[in-house]
Formats: sequence, C-alpha cells, structure tokens
Amino acid sequence: MTEPRDSTLILDPAYDAAGLVTAVVTDRHGALLMVAHMNAEALAATQASGEATFWSRSRGRLWKKGETSGNVLRVVELRIDCDQDALWVIADPAGPACHTGATSCFYRRIDGNRLAPIA
Amino acid sequence: MTEPRDSTLILDPAYDAAGLVTAVVTDRHGALLMVAHMNAEALAATQASGEATFWSRSRGRLWKKGETSGNVLRVVELRIDCDQDALWVIADPAGPACHTGATSCFYRRIDGNRLAPIA
Repeated sequence: MTEPRDSTLILDPAYDAAGLVTAVVTDRHGALLMVAHMNAEALAATQASGEATFWSRSRGRLWKKGETSGNVLRVVELRIDCDQDALWVIADPAGPACHTGATSCFYRRIDGNRLAPIA
Repeated sequence: MTEPRDSTLILDPAYDAAGLVTAVVTDRHGALLMVAHMNAEALAATQASGEATFWSRSRGRLWKKGETSGNVLRVVELRIDCDQDALWVIADPAGPACHTGATSCFYRRIDGNRLAPIA
C-alpha cells in the first residue's frame, strides 16, 4: 500500500495530465517573484544545477530562467506541498524576475476591476 | 487594439481552458501558505467577501477556504502577475492553512528524492 502523498517522506510529484506541477518562486524574504511550471526534467535540472529551470508551455521546451537575460534564480531551498502538485522555490534572484524588468511579476494590485502599480 | 495584459491597468484574467487561474496565498510576512485555483466566480466572491474563495477542481464547486474548519483567509491585498494568469492573495489566516493541520501546505523540504519536515 502506498503511503499518501501528504505524509510520505518520498518525493513523488503529482504531475498533471500535461506532466506539470506549479512552481512558485519567492525570494528568501518571502516576496513572490513569479509562478511557472516544472515537469520532471525541469525539476531534475533545477536540482542538478541549483538554478531554477522550468517547462515553458508557450515554447514547448525546457527553459532555464535567465538563460538569455542572465537573471538566473539561484535555489536556496525547494519545498513541496501536501498533495505534491506544487513546488515552492526559494531563490536568490540575480536580477529582475519579470520579463518586463520588474523585480516581481506581481507588480500590480487589484482594486475592483482596475489594477494599480505597486509603489 | 487591446492593450497587452502586462501593461494594462484593467483587470483581465487570462483564464485557462478550464476557466481557472492559479492563486498563490501567502501571509503578510511572505510565508507561502497554499496554492489553489480561482475561476471568475471565485475571484468575485473573494473580492465581495474579503475571504479567499477558490474553485475546487476535485469537488467541482466553489469552495470558501475555512467554510468547515473555520480557518478562513482574510484578504489583505490581491495582486496579479504580468500575463494575468496567476493571482497573489496576501491574507491573514485564521488558523492552519493546510488540511493536515500544518500552518502551511509547504511543510516539507525537498532533499534529493527525499522530503524532510520543516522544523
């Protein structure tokens, strides 16, 4: 009998139909930087290199964050959630995490149906 | 011509084929509590009530976090990411966020193929 994913101490990601889990990246101070996806290959590459690597759904290929910009995310710690379908990547960012140049992709607050830039 | 999602100040969530966006919940100190999903109805309910409400994929219905346990998540601020397919819910939790009783669903660190409980 398999131990449930929420109590086991064996890594057993619950990949979805597309072979992906959600990967949430924060810095070590708890600022949410970005949300992306990893497949098994991306997770293995992240663990082997110590730099966050994702599966790009739009490009259909492995994507090391910062591979062109240089703004890599150096992994401090990886955690996984109770049902093992989401990863928490705690990382030291080498530069802005967002393709817009913002420190974080979450640079707008929601106010009703409007968005307000974070100061 | 529509302004791109990454620069507009209009809320325009990029719901996926299932009508969902990813919702990442942290407390106001930056601890990652849980990851879930919202559809348009869940987002509207969250905004109207000030308590985080999600779409439960497993139950196929709207799910206010804490509706049975009492461990609601009082929303402090909502943010959205560059391409508007992920929400950041900053919340004050009324109790443990995880169904296991843990403060956060991310109570295990990944160490190779093993998991280690967070002290």
